Amino acid sequence: MPKLSERAETLPASPIRKLVPLADAAEQRGVGVYYLNIGQPDIPTPPQFFQAVDQSDIAVLAYSHSAGNESLRQQIADYYERLGHDIRPDQIIVTTGASEALSFVFAAITNPSDEIIVPEPFYANYNSFSLAKDAKVVPVTTHLEDNFALPSIDAFREKINDRTRAILICNPGNPTGILYTRQELEALRDLAREHDLFLIADEVYREFAYDSSEHLSILGFEGVDENVIVIDSISKRFSACGARIGCVISRNTELMDVIIKMAQARLSPPTFGQMGAEAAYQLPASYYAEVVDEYRGRRDALKQALAEIPGVVCPDINGAFYAMVQLPVDSAEDFCHWLLDEFEHEGKTIMLAPGAGFYATPGLGVDQVRIAYVLNQEELRSAMKCLAAALTAYQARTKSVNAAP
Amino acid sequence: MPKLSERAETLPASPIRKLVPLADAAEQRGVGVYYLNIGQPDIPTPPQFFQAVDQSDIAVLAYSHSAGNESLRQQIADYYERLGHDIRPDQIIVTTGASEALSFVFAAITNPSDEIIVPEPFYANYNSFSLAKDAKVVPVTTHLEDNFALPSIDAFREKINDRTRAILICNPGNPTGILYTRQELEALRDLAREHDLFLIADEVYREFAYDSSEHLSILGFEGVDENVIVIDSISKRFSACGARIGCVISRNTELMDVIIKMAQARLSPPTFGQMGAEAAYQLPASYYAEVVDEYRGRRDALKQALAEIPGVVCPDINGAFYAMVQLPVDSAEDFCHWLLDEFEHEGKTIMLAPGAGFYATPGLGVDQVRIAYVLNQEELRSAMKCLAAALTAYQARTKSVNAAP
Repeated sequence: MPKLSERAETLPASPIRKLVPLADAAEQRGVGVYYLNIGQPDIPTPPQFFQAVDQSDIAVLAYSHSAGNESLRQQIADYYERLGHDIRPDQIIVTTGASEALSFVFAAITNPSDEIIVPEPFYANYNSFSLAKDAKVVPVTTHLEDNFALPSIDAFREKINDRTRAILICNPGNPTGILYTRQELEALRDLAREHDLFLIADEVYREFAYDSSEHLSILGFEGVDENVIVIDSISKRFSACGARIGCVISRNTELMDVIIKMAQARLSPPTFGQMGAEAAYQLPASYYAEVVDEYRGRRDALKQALAEIPGVVCPDINGAFYAMVQLPVDSAEDFCHWLLDEFEHEGKTIMLAPGAGFYATPGLGVDQVRIAYVLNQEELRSAMKCLAAALTAYQARTKSVNAAP
Repeated sequence: MPKLSERAETLPASPIRKLVPLADAAEQRGVGVYYLNIGQPDIPTPPQFFQAVDQSDIAVLAYSHSAGNESLRQQIADYYERLGHDIRPDQIIVTTGASEALSFVFAAITNPSDEIIVPEPFYANYNSFSLAKDAKVVPVTTHLEDNFALPSIDAFREKINDRTRAILICNPGNPTGILYTRQELEALRDLAREHDLFLIADEVYREFAYDSSEHLSILGFEGVDENVIVIDSISKRFSACGARIGCVISRNTELMDVIIKMAQARLSPPTFGQMGAEAAYQLPASYYAEVVDEYRGRRDALKQALAEIPGVVCPDINGAFYAMVQLPVDSAEDFCHWLLDEFEHEGKTIMLAPGAGFYATPGLGVDQVRIAYVLNQEELRSAMKCLAAALTAYQARTKSVNAAP
């Protein structure tokens, strides 16, 4: 057969989605599945979103502007103004989800074999998007026992070489649930400026900050307009993952001129999603407050439930809606397979994302899983009971296997 | 400032969209614009499409399956069955427009500096998508005076080297309006098989065939399942460009396994667009017949109007809704700028896509434009009167400029 590309060979399967066929099979057998593997919230999408789509009185579902409708970009700029950031509509390019925003940015700033420094564990698709451009993610390891705080800035500095193009962070963190401090962010800013690197922040979970510490956007930094790139999305903010509306934001004109050419090549972002997003960005502050209260309650319920399971270690989680959790198993990957293939508790099982897929360094995260707390508190508690029962059964099974002659 | 990628420097501006700021400025001055630059049909999107979206009773706008909803893929498979092609839902991956389908395919089959052979003139974005993967489009020139028919197969054969990965055609052709013959297609099939190349056909204009000659899909070829890749989209078929729903179709399992990983990395195609598409694919054959009749009438009106303008050469056009037309000007690019910057006729001007942007070979197509006949016959005739008046004024202007001391 004709040859595939080399990158095709190296492309990893998504740790978040690769177990889907096993989950489908479990459902086929009549076993219910708690889906905690994927950041797909169960929070209803705001009715205003659907209304805007339903009430749109258009005869032709046409391409929009390649950068996204001007009216939507104005709403996004207004949203940033309310957050205290001065962003013009022409500093925003609307994309088909944050995924496309990341793809555009990687294509605009990396040559083949260029490097992007990313604290690990990181959102697994950073790897896929960089591989698609033949660029390389260079990890700076953070540790569960430190609640995934950034190591000293020297750990970043020593990874910088002449192939380094950017430092990329996710804040609040997927999969870690961390919220970076001002001190951590300022150190990264200074390093990016010193080495003339892009500083990219994926801030799609911006509102999801649960404790006294506030989320800090890198858009607030001064004197680094050429360096700062923000990746954003409505998927989590408005529970509208299927709209596929994100954006890339930068005050670097030269960069945005390149990205608009890429945006023109793919014609336009989805029209319906833009209509809904425009309505959603006009929601009052109370909308965000309610959603964040709901997730804070879930976070607390998850932490409490996990604390009661022997051998499970859950770090502090202050933002987003994920936790990287250590399990008392040798291979979280095997355990996740077994959960779907063989286990059930009261007719249910649980789907988790194996941790190793969120690390670039081989061997790390093998006993960790990412839990997305995207179910309501009651379901979450039931899911954690299911997990506790599963761990007990799995350990018993392992022992009996080991005891076999 | 931080360095951009090398591909960022080479990325061309879209010939179809780059004049948009000038058109915006014309509208600002109160000059109406006939938009014949872009394949954005004015045909109403079927009401069934909007109804499916409006009637969807969902609380959460969730991610879909990364390959697209199973129910949509089944409808697409049924559509292909009606066309006589046996395609299973798992041989279809739904994408965010044909644009994403092309991006995925190029990423899956090319390494940096690999080559894809494409008859020129070609859809300009083939160049952008290949450049984004650092691959190279190698043109085989076709000529207006031959109605852009393919040259002998040897012209393709002599472009093949060890970097060649695929032959890509657009059938019916954008921008040429050509419908390839069985003989032409079979020659390409044999060549692809002989050299173990992918044969990619962009068939998004499949239904738009106006004369006795029928559109032939490469899906009908036997013995080349590993080689054949079809790019498809609902944008033109159902006048739903803003839905951003396309697909890639192949019976090559290994290729589809790679593309599904890319699809998983970007999560999912837009949910609303998929709902509408599923309804549209259930439309009866009469829907297509009506649309094709409408375009056939436009094609005839355009040909007739162009035949009456001195110095304009329009080739035979049998499919899609474009014509590459030769104008009596030295630089179609300058003329297109001038149309938007300086000209008006009865309060209107006309936006065309300069031809050179559809060629990879420098110097070709400089006196050509692409006309998309996406307006109704009356508007199209008015637009052609506007073009005739413009050419007269432009030639007078050029003469007086040349006559100046």
